[in-house]
Amino acid sequence: MNDLILRNATLPGGETATIAIAGQRIAAIDRTGHSPVSGSAELDLRGALVLPGLVDGHIHLDKTYLGDGWHSHRPSTSIVAHVAAERQERHALAPVEQRASALIERAITNGTTILRTHADIDPVSGLSNLDGILAARERYRDAITIQVVAFPQSGIIAAPGTYDLLDEALRCGADLIGGLDPAGFDNDVDGHLEAIFGLADRHSVGVDIHLHDAGDVGLAELQQIAERAVALGMQGRVTVGHAYALGTEPWRRVAPVAEALASAGVSIMTTAPGSHAFPPVLALRAAGVNVFAANDNIRDSWSPFGEADMLERMMLVAYRSGFTTDAELDVAFDLGTNAAARALGIEGYGLAVGNPADLVVLDARHVAEAVVARPPRRYVMRHGVIVAQDG
Amino acid sequence: MNDLILRNATLPGGETATIAIAGQRIAAIDRTGHSPVSGSAELDLRGALVLPGLVDGHIHLDKTYLGDGWHSHRPSTSIVAHVAAERQERHALAPVEQRASALIERAITNGTTILRTHADIDPVSGLSNLDGILAARERYRDAITIQVVAFPQSGIIAAPGTYDLLDEALRCGADLIGGLDPAGFDNDVDGHLEAIFGLADRHSVGVDIHLHDAGDVGLAELQQIAERAVALGMQGRVTVGHAYALGTEPWRRVAPVAEALASAGVSIMTTAPGSHAFPPVLALRAAGVNVFAANDNIRDSWSPFGEADMLERMMLVAYRSGFTTDAELDVAFDLGTNAAARALGIEGYGLAVGNPADLVVLDARHVAEAVVARPPRRYVMRHGVIVAQDG
Repeated sequence: MNDLILRNATLPGGETATIAIAGQRIAAIDRTGHSPVSGSAELDLRGALVLPGLVDGHIHLDKTYLGDGWHSHRPSTSIVAHVAAERQERHALAPVEQRASALIERAITNGTTILRTHADIDPVSGLSNLDGILAARERYRDAITIQVVAFPQSGIIAAPGTYDLLDEALRCGADLIGGLDPAGFDNDVDGHLEAIFGLADRHSVGVDIHLHDAGDVGLAELQQIAERAVALGMQGRVTVGHAYALGTEPWRRVAPVAEALASAGVSIMTTAPGSHAFPPVLALRAAGVNVFAANDNIRDSWSPFGEADMLERMMLVAYRSGFTTDAELDVAFDLGTNAAARALGIEGYGLAVGNPADLVVLDARHVAEAVVARPPRRYVMRHGVIVAQDG
Repeated sequence: MNDLILRNATLPGGETATIAIAGQRIAAIDRTGHSPVSGSAELDLRGALVLPGLVDGHIHLDKTYLGDGWHSHRPSTSIVAHVAAERQERHALAPVEQRASALIERAITNGTTILRTHADIDPVSGLSNLDGILAARERYRDAITIQVVAFPQSGIIAAPGTYDLLDEALRCGADLIGGLDPAGFDNDVDGHLEAIFGLADRHSVGVDIHLHDAGDVGLAELQQIAERAVALGMQGRVTVGHAYALGTEPWRRVAPVAEALASAGVSIMTTAPGSHAFPPVLALRAAGVNVFAANDNIRDSWSPFGEADMLERMMLVAYRSGFTTDAELDVAFDLGTNAAARALGIEGYGLAVGNPADLVVLDARHVAEAVVARPPRRYVMRHGVIVAQDG
């Protein structure tokens, strides 16, 4: 016996189907309309579009001002200066768990069923940001899947004591090890990469690196990251966020790096920033690189913008990339669903029989329209349970 | 006796006030909390933000697919090719009045109280687009102010017969004369500008020109437009949309043109396109140029994007311009309110005693938050009447 039958659902590909959910999983998808599926409850979706749960693969739950007062943005002259200002400001903010919870709730309302967050680890705050995030994760454990990256926002070499804290974070609940501009921030590419890949190897966890470094330096770092991923057999478990160098340099210089990233299974995350060059999505995908989109900073000291809505992020990536055709809008959608799930190593993702029933229902004719119109989410279901409605 | 009292309103500047509305106008704004204002009806806004009605100063009511089925975007290799494809596609669309009405309703729901639309005029469709727009304008005359530009989308020199149609359009209800890339489309800068400024002079109407031409050519055209505006005494009544040349060329070459535009009172409209250089907002404002933002193409053959939401447009302009501080977000807001009203020659615009009571109520602490969060519009009031609610 199924628990729930969704009738008259429109699938992303446009077909009408009946979807059966049993326990936490998708038990059947009937495109014929003739299978006698039944369940203890039914919903007539009247042609509404059913999408897989959205995946926000790079955010910062501990940084957001959501759940707190308004904090006016104060620009900085460099990343180093901004990180210092952010450490100063922290004591004036509401507790991490409170702010993280506000952001998580908004993400759930918008249809995100899986997210990966970074947690700032530094000698001043120790593991307090991680603790706040883990508490919030526990609170919403039945509504959303959360991966946590131990992130050295203040550097590793530049902030003595951080290495041991990262090591401890990985014993205390962090799922991955992060990194930050080995050249631009820590001024020691080998030292930084040796530290984080060493921790990854020792704890058997994935790596997720913030790389703002542009130009030749950034390309060289990407090459080294790819080489280290291969050397440690970590293909498919390494992600680089921003990777601006892929967008600032001409394709003839980017192409060999793209090839290295593709064969090393290193995924690239972009937010499609508004006023900065970013990785060329279509060219990288054509080269075999797994590119995905994420919201990153949401109303925090780094950015006053952000809605924690992956459909809005897809729209922004499409807008910034010059995507206009249905096929291109489908690519934008892929960046916040399948590609993101692949980057995060999610098993059994997507609308297929046997997979967890993580799905979003909204009024749109197809994926392209969902991306441009971003309609309210009628239902958000995670592991077979409706976790948000009419959001 | 006032008709309506809005209590506990937060003004854009942050002060709490009581606003009295009598007839179509703002009768009083009491910031002291002590004036004994009363009226036949009252609304307690509980601290909600009250903004002036939003102004969308450049859209295309006749082009939208809203109110019609989904039409997949088909890219073109040039503007000339796209215009030809658009003329071909027109017969397959729902009637202009139907689509224009759908777009107008969405704009009203989002808080737009004044808009300016272009109406395609060409020898194939004659004045039919104008007629459809005028019918829709009449239908919503009590809910929104609409200015109509007679727009030669297929050129004037390139499309013989258009000049006479433009002349007729101005006798039949169009409020302004439009123009299109005198060099890039009509390949006759003097001929094109002579035609439209001649019509403007003869009919005593303003001018609103689409100028995609980039580089030296575009800068030279802007200079000539400024000169013609001064020669005809049309300061403050000429607007140029896109003006990409201001964004593609270095500031040292743009500066003298900016000076000419400023002293000729020529306004510049930008949408902040996603993947194309556009005019530098802050530099132009500092040079005295009246820059404003507008939505332009909304779900039509030119762009699959668009929500007819001026707060979203302000967010996009801010995102693309690298605006992050409260002061910069205030500038983004100005582009879709005061600056746009100035470009459109609207008298008595804004939250001041004696002005028409056109206002928007929403839940935000101040203008900066309204721009980044774009919350639902609790009330939209136009000329003292609530025209949309909980949109």
